[in-house]
Amino acid sequence: MASNKMNIAVIPGDGIGKEVVPEGVRVLNAAATKYGLDFNFDEFHFSSCDYYKQHGQMMPDNWKDQIGGHDAIFFGAVGWPDTVPDHVSLWGSLLQFRREFDQYVSLRPAKLMPGVTSPLAGRGPGDIDMMIVRENTEGEYSSIGGRMFPGTDREIVMQETVMSRVGVDRILRYAFDLARKRGGKLTSATKSNGISITMPYWDERVLEMQKTYPDVTVDKYHIDILAAMFVLHPDRFDVVVGSNLFGDILSDLGPACTGTIGIAPSGNINPERKFPSLFEPVHGSAPDIAGKGIANPIGQIWSGAMMLEHLGHPEAAQGIMTAIESTLTDPALRTGDLGGTADTITCGKAIAAAV
Amino acid sequence: MASNKMNIAVIPGDGIGKEVVPEGVRVLNAAATKYGLDFNFDEFHFSSCDYYKQHGQMMPDNWKDQIGGHDAIFFGAVGWPDTVPDHVSLWGSLLQFRREFDQYVSLRPAKLMPGVTSPLAGRGPGDIDMMIVRENTEGEYSSIGGRMFPGTDREIVMQETVMSRVGVDRILRYAFDLARKRGGKLTSATKSNGISITMPYWDERVLEMQKTYPDVTVDKYHIDILAAMFVLHPDRFDVVVGSNLFGDILSDLGPACTGTIGIAPSGNINPERKFPSLFEPVHGSAPDIAGKGIANPIGQIWSGAMMLEHLGHPEAAQGIMTAIESTLTDPALRTGDLGGTADTITCGKAIAAAV
Ligand SMILES: CC(C)[C@H](C(=O)O)[C@@H](O)C(=O)O
Ligand SMILES: CC(C)[C@H](C(=O)O)[C@@H](O)C(=O)O
Repeated sequence: MASNKMNIAVIPGDGIGKEVVPEGVRVLNAAATKYGLDFNFDEFHFSSCDYYKQHGQMMPDNWKDQIGGHDAIFFGAVGWPDTVPDHVSLWGSLLQFRREFDQYVSLRPAKLMPGVTSPLAGRGPGDIDMMIVRENTEGEYSSIGGRMFPGTDREIVMQETVMSRVGVDRILRYAFDLARKRGGKLTSATKSNGISITMPYWDERVLEMQKTYPDVTVDKYHIDILAAMFVLHPDRFDVVVGSNLFGDILSDLGPACTGTIGIAPSGNINPERKFPSLFEPVHGSAPDIAGKGIANPIGQIWSGAMMLEHLGHPEAAQGIMTAIESTLTDPALRTGDLGGTADTITCGKAIAAAV
Repeated sequence: MASNKMNIAVIPGDGIGKEVVPEGVRVLNAAATKYGLDFNFDEFHFSSCDYYKQHGQMMPDNWKDQIGGHDAIFFGAVGWPDTVPDHVSLWGSLLQFRREFDQYVSLRPAKLMPGVTSPLAGRGPGDIDMMIVRENTEGEYSSIGGRMFPGTDREIVMQETVMSRVGVDRILRYAFDLARKRGGKLTSATKSNGISITMPYWDERVLEMQKTYPDVTVDKYHIDILAAMFVLHPDRFDVVVGSNLFGDILSDLGPACTGTIGIAPSGNINPERKFPSLFEPVHGSAPDIAGKGIANPIGQIWSGAMMLEHLGHPEAAQGIMTAIESTLTDPALRTGDLGGTADTITCGKAIAAAV
C-alpha cells in the first residue's frame, strides 16, 4: 500500500526553476487537500549556480545524507552559464543525482494536449501520444576520456561511450514492460549502421529481450531517420526506447512536435525504489526569460503528477492532469508562450483551483 | 579554369540506388549536351551487398586504384540488411570512401521546394533554406572500442568518440567560410552540458575560430533543443555545423521539415581536391520499395547538380535545379511519395527534358 505521508526534497535550482517550483508545490498541496495526502516539503538551495558561487562546488559533501532518505526529489532546473560552465554545473548536480541514486529510467511523455497548437500541420489533441524511455546512467554521458597534446596541432580529445549488459537490459526490460501495458508496440532508436560497436550491441540486446516479450511488436529505426519520422509520422509511435543521448534528443523533439517543450515533464526513476526518484520539467533554467515571472509552470506541475503516480497515487495524479487540461483550454489562464495572457503565478493558481 | 571533360566513377550500390542512379546519369547527360560538357562515366559494381555475396567483402582490394583517379564519384545507396549487416556493408564501403578519400565535409541542403508540402504548418517554398555542414571523418563514427566479458552479466562495450584539432578546425573553417558567403550566420550544434569532454572541446574551437570571422554571427544550441527548434522555428537557421553524428541527425531532420528526405542530396567533399569527392542522395537503399520502379530520383539528380557545382560548373548545376523545380510543380511528373503519379523513369526523363 502506498503511504499517504510523503517526504519530498524540493530543489528549485537556477533561473526559472525558482519560479515554477513554487507553482508545482502549490498544486501538489491542492491535491493533498483533495485526496487526503500529507506532504512534508524540505527545500534545499544547493544544486544551483548561486550555491556554487558561495561554496565553489554545486553541492555540500554530504548531499546524499541530506536528501537520500526522502521519498522523492521535486526538482526545478539547473544551469547558469554566465556564472558556471554547463558541464560543471550539470555534472556537479543533476547528472550526479541520476547516477548516484541509480535513476536509470528517464520517462518522458510527449502528448498533444488540448489548447496547444502543434507545429505539425493537421495534428490535433490525441494525435500524438508517446512515451519516451531514456537510459539515464551510462552510454554517451560518460566520465571516461581526456585530452592529449593540448594547445598543439596534434591536440586530440576522446570520450568513451560505455554500455553494459546490466545497463542496457534493465532499461529495455522497463520499456518492454511499459509497451506491454500500453499499445504492445515498442520502437528502438539505434545507429548501428554508423556507430559500429556500441549500437550493434544495443540491437543485439533488443533482439534477445524480444524473445521474452513475444506479445510486443518491435520496430528499429536509426536515429537520423527516426528524428525525421517524428516529424513526418508522429502517430506511428507509442513507446520509444533509446540510449542516454538518443533519448535526450527524442524527448525534446517529441514535445516540440506536440507544440512546446514548456509543458513537458519527466521522471528520473529508480524503479526498485532503493533511492529517491527525481521529477523535473524537460525545459532548463531559461536564462533569457528568468526573473520575469512569465515562465510556463505546467512542465513542473505535470512532473508533480508523475511523482504522485510513482509514489502510488494514480488518482491524485489523474486529478492534476485533468486540471492541467481544463486550464490549458482557457487563453486567460495560459502563459504567453502558448499565446495566452497569464503569468506564471496566475496559471499555477488556476490549476491548483481546478484540482 | 574548370575542365569540361570529366571522368566520373558511377556506383549504383544496392536497392533503389540501382534505379535512381540511371536517372541521375540521364540528367547529367542532358546537361552535358546543353552546356557543352563532356562526361566519361565508368560504372562499378562493387560497394554493394551483391558484390559481398560473391566475394565475401564489399570491395576489391584495389578499389582505391580503380576509382581514386576519377574527378568525382556518383553514388547511389548501399545496404541490404537481409544479406549483410548494415555496419559491415557501410564500414566496408561508403564510410571507407569518406575516410580514405578524406571527404571531411558532408554538405547537405534542406530547402523547401515548390510542389512539396512541408509537414510543418504554415511553411511554404522559400521559408526553409538551410545548409547543414557535417564533419565526415571522425567524431562518434570511430573504429576504436571493443567488448569485454562477452556473454556474461559483466559484459561491457565501449566505443571512443575521437575529435582532433585538425579535424574540428577544418570543418569549422569550411562552415564559417560558407556562412560568410551566405547570410553571415552560423549555428553550432553541441551537447557540452551532458557530453563532458568532446563537446566542450568542440565549443572551445568554435570560440577560437570565431575570432577570425568577426563578420559571422554564431549561435550555439545543444542538439536536443536544436532538434526541437528545427521543428518550431526552422526559419531561424541558415548554415548549421555539427559533428559526424549530430550532422547526420540534423541532415535527416532538416529535409523531413522540408517535406521529404526523398529529394535531399548530399556531397561528401574533399575541398582540397586531393581525392575525388562523392555525391549521393541522403536516402538509403530502401529495401521496402526497391525493385518497384517507384523511387523518387530527385535526391540523386540534385546530387548530380551538387557535383557539377563542385567541379566548377555552376551554370549547369543551376540549369538542373531549375529543371527540378519546374518538374516538381507538375503532379503528373512527381513520384508517388510526393502525391504524384509518375514512376522513377518518367520523373527522370521529365527533368532531363526540362534541362
Ligand atoms: C548509412 C549511414 C552509415 C550513413 C551515415 O550515418 O553517415 C547515412 O545515414 C548518411 O547520412 O549518409
Ligand atoms: C541539462 C542536460 C545535461 C540534460 C541532459 O542532457 O540530460 C537535459 O537536456 C535533460 O534532458 O535533462
